[in-house]
Amino acid sequence: MADETRPTRAPTAEDVARLAGVHRSAVSRTFTPGASVAPQTREKVLEAAATLGYRVNFLARSLSHQRSNLVGLVVSDIDNPFRAQLLAELGTSLVASGYRPLLLPTERGGKVARHIDMMLHYNVAGAIVTDDASPAEIARQCADHGVPLVLINKRPVSDTVLNVSMDTETAGELAAHALFDAGCRRVALASQRRSSHSIGLRRSAFWRACERLGIEIADEYFGDLPNYEGGRAAADAFLADTIDVDGVYCANDYLALGFIDTIRHLSALSIPGDLKLVACDDIPEAGWLAYDLTTVRQDPVRTADAAVNGLLARISEPDTTALPVVVDVHLVKRGSTALTPPKPRGQARPPL
Amino acid sequence: MADETRPTRAPTAEDVARLAGVHRSAVSRTFTPGASVAPQTREKVLEAAATLGYRVNFLARSLSHQRSNLVGLVVSDIDNPFRAQLLAELGTSLVASGYRPLLLPTERGGKVARHIDMMLHYNVAGAIVTDDASPAEIARQCADHGVPLVLINKRPVSDTVLNVSMDTETAGELAAHALFDAGCRRVALASQRRSSHSIGLRRSAFWRACERLGIEIADEYFGDLPNYEGGRAAADAFLADTIDVDGVYCANDYLALGFIDTIRHLSALSIPGDLKLVACDDIPEAGWLAYDLTTVRQDPVRTADAAVNGLLARISEPDTTALPVVVDVHLVKRGSTALTPPKPRGQARPPL
Repeated sequence: MADETRPTRAPTAEDVARLAGVHRSAVSRTFTPGASVAPQTREKVLEAAATLGYRVNFLARSLSHQRSNLVGLVVSDIDNPFRAQLLAELGTSLVASGYRPLLLPTERGGKVARHIDMMLHYNVAGAIVTDDASPAEIARQCADHGVPLVLINKRPVSDTVLNVSMDTETAGELAAHALFDAGCRRVALASQRRSSHSIGLRRSAFWRACERLGIEIADEYFGDLPNYEGGRAAADAFLADTIDVDGVYCANDYLALGFIDTIRHLSALSIPGDLKLVACDDIPEAGWLAYDLTTVRQDPVRTADAAVNGLLARISEPDTTALPVVVDVHLVKRGSTALTPPKPRGQARPPL
Repeated sequence: MADETRPTRAPTAEDVARLAGVHRSAVSRTFTPGASVAPQTREKVLEAAATLGYRVNFLARSLSHQRSNLVGLVVSDIDNPFRAQLLAELGTSLVASGYRPLLLPTERGGKVARHIDMMLHYNVAGAIVTDDASPAEIARQCADHGVPLVLINKRPVSDTVLNVSMDTETAGELAAHALFDAGCRRVALASQRRSSHSIGLRRSAFWRACERLGIEIADEYFGDLPNYEGGRAAADAFLADTIDVDGVYCANDYLALGFIDTIRHLSALSIPGDLKLVACDDIPEAGWLAYDLTTVRQDPVRTADAAVNGLLARISEPDTTALPVVVDVHLVKRGSTALTPPKPRGQARPPL
């Protein structure tokens, strides 16, 4: 039992505390998700734990606590850059909070309920859902098992399920104002054919804002899904029509990329010369030279932080009412609504 | 003990077998990752389990088996569309095999070792790594804990760690041939400044193939990272030079998008009129109208399947030598290497 001897048995929390020069409770707090511990203390404990090869048996601890430190992340459409960013941020934020993200990729039309069922086998501490399926079944299953649930940009289901969503009302207004300020008075919408809660809210808010501003909405064009191919299909339908408009609102950026490419490469129309364009999300591609798209930004970092912090609060107080969190949006002005086209192409002008 | 009575105690595997009309072992196989069970039998068992509310306690089972059904997925740079696709496919393939992906997003320069350490606390059944960090430390930690490991497109570390990688040698050859066939005889390279195992192999294979074909490599241009911004920086450096070349090889598609945008929007050069361009990966963006990029395709579905199947084999026979898996590549020809530019712009031609 000499103090200076490195123990040959499996190291204990006590050993870690002694080497780190901290109290035993600091070791415990370091390995407890959400527990408060000073950064320097945490660093000392983690160094000492690494030196000694100390490991908390989380699975054993889960059994005694009835809950693991796992959090289910139910996501679909990771091909949408906004979803990919959101997933990365959710993962990073959960890991920083001492939780471990259990990834459950779902497919459109796939059996989400079965995925959730499998997730519940792991006694997850909570779940965050940002796919496109109906949340009712997920919410029922999670409620049955007392698993706190956070929905991102989905239809609210009950006051014990936390809703984190972008401010769609303001998003619609900002988009309408951006088109109005660019001189548009008669516009078209491009979105997806299948109904979606989030896209639906964006459309109706935009619609109302246009009414207030006196912008006429001439028609709406659809693609199957809110992605690049959906945007191409919506633009094809738009070009096949003989409609006369001066602006287009795309329900999301991903779809807008396909819409822009089709207009620029397969028609004689120019953006922003003949047509101004506004979308929503501010994915990195919106800022690329090929797109230069004016859009309403929802910040994936702030959305992920709101979801993770909200989940932690639900885990510690599961029975309180979950007050919805609305994430701010703002307009990012780019070339697609510029008043003068930067490159007038091929139009002969009389000399002054 | 009446047969027709639905049990009020927690349902057992026996209850599920009775309701499904299958043998008890079929229930067990249905809930054992990798075990063989006929699809119809599996369906019956899952239906019965759902009806009865039967749940395997996976965490308890993990303790008795010493391993959970969790598989660590260590990924970085999900903003690269190839990584996002690969992650989605790995997740889907693991779930289909009865495993659960534990997501460990790493950041460039982040403390990967600590992530791995946390992952090992969960007694993961295995790990798949596709980030950009050095694999040596991860491999050591996994080996210490007897955790089977699969590396995707990374430097091989030992013959007990499975390497799944694209056929970089053929990729370099296909890229060089595509430029040669498009008439290029003097080309430039665009890649990232920081060394990377996978990008390094692509470059050297391309270099050798050019030598064999008699293509001169005039110079190489770099961005910091192999992403859109990296491509823009490489193109800026390229344009600042007075070099005369007829083609460019970009080390990956993501970087090529930034390179193309810079050339098309900030210079008088046209692609493919003045400059042919070839890259590697075949991310969806490569096929978009704005890019129309000839590239060497590595299929994310086949890569993910090879990694997951390889991991399952390592889990059942951890002590065998891991034979490296090389995933085929093929050339996808698009407009960036077209012999005649599709849209000659603004060049006055004498009337015939």
